[in-house]
Amino acid sequence: MQTITSRKNPRITHMKKLGASREYRQTQGEFLCDGFKLLQEALKNGARIRTVLYCGEPETDLPESAEILPVSRDVIEYVSPMKNPQNILFSCAVEPAAGSLPAAGRFLVLDGIQDPGNVGTILRGADAFGMDGVILTGDCADLYNPKTVRATMGAVFRQKTAVMDLTALAAMKRGGIRFYGAALHRDSKDVRQIGRNNCAVVIGSEGRGISPEVLALCDETVVIPMLPRCESLNAAAAASVIMWELVRETLPGEGTQWQS
Amino acid sequence: MQTITSRKNPRITHMKKLGASREYRQTQGEFLCDGFKLLQEALKNGARIRTVLYCGEPETDLPESAEILPVSRDVIEYVSPMKNPQNILFSCAVEPAAGSLPAAGRFLVLDGIQDPGNVGTILRGADAFGMDGVILTGDCADLYNPKTVRATMGAVFRQKTAVMDLTALAAMKRGGIRFYGAALHRDSKDVRQIGRNNCAVVIGSEGRGISPEVLALCDETVVIPMLPRCESLNAAAAASVIMWELVRETLPGEGTQWQS
Repeated sequence: MQTITSRKNPRITHMKKLGASREYRQTQGEFLCDGFKLLQEALKNGARIRTVLYCGEPETDLPESAEILPVSRDVIEYVSPMKNPQNILFSCAVEPAAGSLPAAGRFLVLDGIQDPGNVGTILRGADAFGMDGVILTGDCADLYNPKTVRATMGAVFRQKTAVMDLTALAAMKRGGIRFYGAALHRDSKDVRQIGRNNCAVVIGSEGRGISPEVLALCDETVVIPMLPRCESLNAAAAASVIMWELVRETLPGEGTQWQS
Repeated sequence: MQTITSRKNPRITHMKKLGASREYRQTQGEFLCDGFKLLQEALKNGARIRTVLYCGEPETDLPESAEILPVSRDVIEYVSPMKNPQNILFSCAVEPAAGSLPAAGRFLVLDGIQDPGNVGTILRGADAFGMDGVILTGDCADLYNPKTVRATMGAVFRQKTAVMDLTALAAMKRGGIRFYGAALHRDSKDVRQIGRNNCAVVIGSEGRGISPEVLALCDETVVIPMLPRCESLNAAAAASVIMWELVRETLPGEGTQWQS
């Protein structure tokens, strides 16, 4: 195969746009991933890999069903939104997730979390702790932003997610899910005291917290107790503690690893 | 006062270097902070503010004892390492922290955590959960990198920290602190089962985990139970869950906020 060295090659401009534009990702139903670790995770989890760009000797098996394109290092650096990309980039098809969340279980709702690293880190934690779904509402970072995808460390290929508006959230609530908003109010419940089944915990945006509309939908508010001199934790740190608290009493004991 | 518009003004090059160079910060004993929120935290916590650069109308009281310099917006953008800086930047003196950690308590050791956002987020959590000290060892991101400082959301002005080498860590251990390394080994203890007093939990680097030298120093290893399909959490997420687990049973009950 001939090595592509031109940034103007149509396949290269396609991949570049997948990394750069949320709108383009949506119209194509495809997203850009970088690095060998993510490729291994994509293969292991049966993701539909569409195109692989690589330079040098690939450090892993390449998927046979995908379009495989050797490219120059310059092209890798041009396409990747990362500062120091590895020698491999690839694209995957977005899995149609609509309606795929179970009706019962433990959910996390991200309301306007704008940092892709936070969204990705939360997805990684949700996958680790077996959340039944992560729901994005409001103006969240795109799940398929390359920085989000990288921060998930592969959880993007496994964790059930959904994008919902207020109407869809209200329908979940009518379906028997109790909504807790992570916010410090006078009557907020201690996170150690909340119901752990059929619940959704809402984490608000880094700067402004939970939006008034979503807060109005919550049955109760919940706090992580902390020293009063601190106002809050980082959004991903708070989400991690809350998810852990939701599952910690259902985990098996010392010495065993939790089996799904 | 005359507005500084030149990037070559010696006070401006000084502030720029504080943001850009770890070495320069160390020789000057001074670091750069950005934004009104951090300035409020610095004032509230009695930080020694040295110089303030601002443009437009300051949204907060400026410290009287500091050098106050009105500058152009261009100068703010030049000095700040952030993409969209607010209209204020300032520098603080590094507090001499050597020997300031208590001999007993709960400690977190960061071993080679390289992302400034992770180090800052962990400091913020440590402050919120009342850790007695955060210790940096190995090749960690600088505590006074502007991105670390921003991620602490002010905890940098409160949380006790220390930079230690292996000899200093070994001395802590001899002093009665039990060391737990966060790592998945065959005989790792469940985080819900470890001793919660006079302990230090080591969190390893994002890519390579705990270094062999520090791991050799640990009395035991500890894991956060999770679904086996996941290898790990983000370093700051893992640290948050571990710190929460160390304090959750000593926190007061529902409806009260924890008092320090």
